[in-house]
Amino acid sequence: MQEAQFISLLWLIGILAEAMTGALAAGRKQMDLFGVVIIGCATAIGGGTLRDILLGNYPIIWVENVHYLIAIAFASLLTVIIAPLMRYLSKLFLAIDALGLAVFSIIGAQKTLALGFSPVVAVVMGVVTGVFGGVIRDILCNQVPLIFRKELYAIISLMTASLYIGLSYLGVTEWVNLIMCLSFGFSFRMLALKYKWSMPTFDYQAEIDTHGH
Amino acid sequence: MQEAQFISLLWLIGILAEAMTGALAAGRKQMDLFGVVIIGCATAIGGGTLRDILLGNYPIIWVENVHYLIAIAFASLLTVIIAPLMRYLSKLFLAIDALGLAVFSIIGAQKTLALGFSPVVAVVMGVVTGVFGGVIRDILCNQVPLIFRKELYAIISLMTASLYIGLSYLGVTEWVNLIMCLSFGFSFRMLALKYKWSMPTFDYQAEIDTHGH
Amino acid sequence: MQEAQFISLLWLIGILAEAMTGALAAGRKQMDLFGVVIIGCATAIGGGTLRDILLGNYPIIWVENVHYLIAIAFASLLTVIIAPLMRYLSKLFLAIDALGLAVFSIIGAQKTLALGFSPVVAVVMGVVTGVFGGVIRDILCNQVPLIFRKELYAIISLMTASLYIGLSYLGVTEWVNLIMCLSFGFSFRMLALKYKWSMPTFDYQAEIDTHGH
Repeated sequence: MQEAQFISLLWLIGILAEAMTGALAAGRKQMDLFGVVIIGCATAIGGGTLRDILLGNYPIIWVENVHYLIAIAFASLLTVIIAPLMRYLSKLFLAIDALGLAVFSIIGAQKTLALGFSPVVAVVMGVVTGVFGGVIRDILCNQVPLIFRKELYAIISLMTASLYIGLSYLGVTEWVNLIMCLSFGFSFRMLALKYKWSMPTFDYQAEIDTHGH
Repeated sequence: MQEAQFISLLWLIGILAEAMTGALAAGRKQMDLFGVVIIGCATAIGGGTLRDILLGNYPIIWVENVHYLIAIAFASLLTVIIAPLMRYLSKLFLAIDALGLAVFSIIGAQKTLALGFSPVVAVVMGVVTGVFGGVIRDILCNQVPLIFRKELYAIISLMTASLYIGLSYLGVTEWVNLIMCLSFGFSFRMLALKYKWSMPTFDYQAEIDTHGH
Repeated sequence: MQEAQFISLLWLIGILAEAMTGALAAGRKQMDLFGVVIIGCATAIGGGTLRDILLGNYPIIWVENVHYLIAIAFASLLTVIIAPLMRYLSKLFLAIDALGLAVFSIIGAQKTLALGFSPVVAVVMGVVTGVFGGVIRDILCNQVPLIFRKELYAIISLMTASLYIGLSYLGVTEWVNLIMCLSFGFSFRMLALKYKWSMPTFDYQAEIDTHGH
């Protein structure tokens, strides 16, 4: 198997798993099956779509290969059927989501570099690819995006994308680079979940309250 | 009258009616006149705009023909004045909205096919054109998109777009195709409203509650 | 100093100030530092980004010059540190925001005209550039956009952009035009704040309540 095939396979696992977590989020809002499919699609490919729109990189991958979209729609609907089982799989899904975070961040950075943009833009687009599917999901579900408030997530995306680009520039072989970045991103996210690591929070309201405003 | 003129006329009626329902939604949130215009515009042309951005199809229609945007803004403001009458016209508006759903879905599919994309992409873009104006309206009004929870709407868009594309491939004349698809979409939507047909809902919260999680 | 440098300098001041107000909005929602940076960036450059996407004008400025994005991110984080001082600076920030509104509206109109679009499109894009950063900020913070409900804001953007285009067509020198439009937009916004001028509101709910529906 080539590096490109390996990362594509992980990407496919990632988008299907994200579709399923998106479907669950739709279920928490009692949406109908159409809402389930839309939220599943937005969660799975919203980040990559936003990246391509920001870069003006057309055609967007799921427009060119619409079978990805169909697979995502099926995964979303399947979730409705197997939802009773999902509780027993929640640890598996957290693990796939952690892997997906690393995979999406690496792919976002890769594609941006391949289009000739600068490394800093590639890091930014790694983060957009890694986390904005979840942001769009939360906007459609009418809630403040989770990743702005919960355990370390986006910063891991940023560090994984940076590590990938840094190692590429140092001339590290693609295979070694991929394995190192996937291990780093995955382990860091799992540790953040286990030990509830989170970013410092900025609470401006509280301070105003303190001063009686 | 040609087919193209006929469908354009229906499209114009559709965007003006959508602008007016958007303006009413803004009124329900006590927005000011600027908010009324923005929500009116987003409801009327948000779906087609999102389609063109996803396809990279520039210039967007209202950028090329800005008089459409001006007409939509006027229709939105007019709504504020005639709002007291709107209650008596609610059935008329539901009927125009049902027709608009069919028209937008057909046009979205038509334009996508004309750009050389595959039939499946054309169906997806028919749905985007048909329903995402309402989704953007609801996001701007800070509520969970209605179409993810109410009577059959998006699925009718999907079926109308599919029917149009299917009949085109079978070589059905454009006029016959249009009349059949418009009749199908319009009647199906009116029946769904009358008999409160809706999609099955996915309620994941309830199940968790049942199991005490 | 050239006109272009002068307006660029004001633009830079504007985006940094907008980033800081965005960071405060994130603090009001108790977001983490990553959320602060995202909301800061969205507030500062969301309007210009949306304009470029709607016009298909690639590459987007902060993709081409990513140091703007880095400066905005730093300004957002700096806000967290100096937040205790911000209360004493609130009048200064309202003034910079008023100036920024005029600057963004003028730049949005300028860039659109330079791309060969019509004056009406230029006015629309002036408004998009001037106010949609705040709209995107409010969507990400899960609240109804402020500018649809508060003191005159968007209409000042529209009038400033129109004035700029009108004076350009009349052959007024660029320097004179800039000074006039900046003075007009800035003063109008400051007066609107001082005297709480606002647009008429459209309250559709109230009417329905009155009629018992």
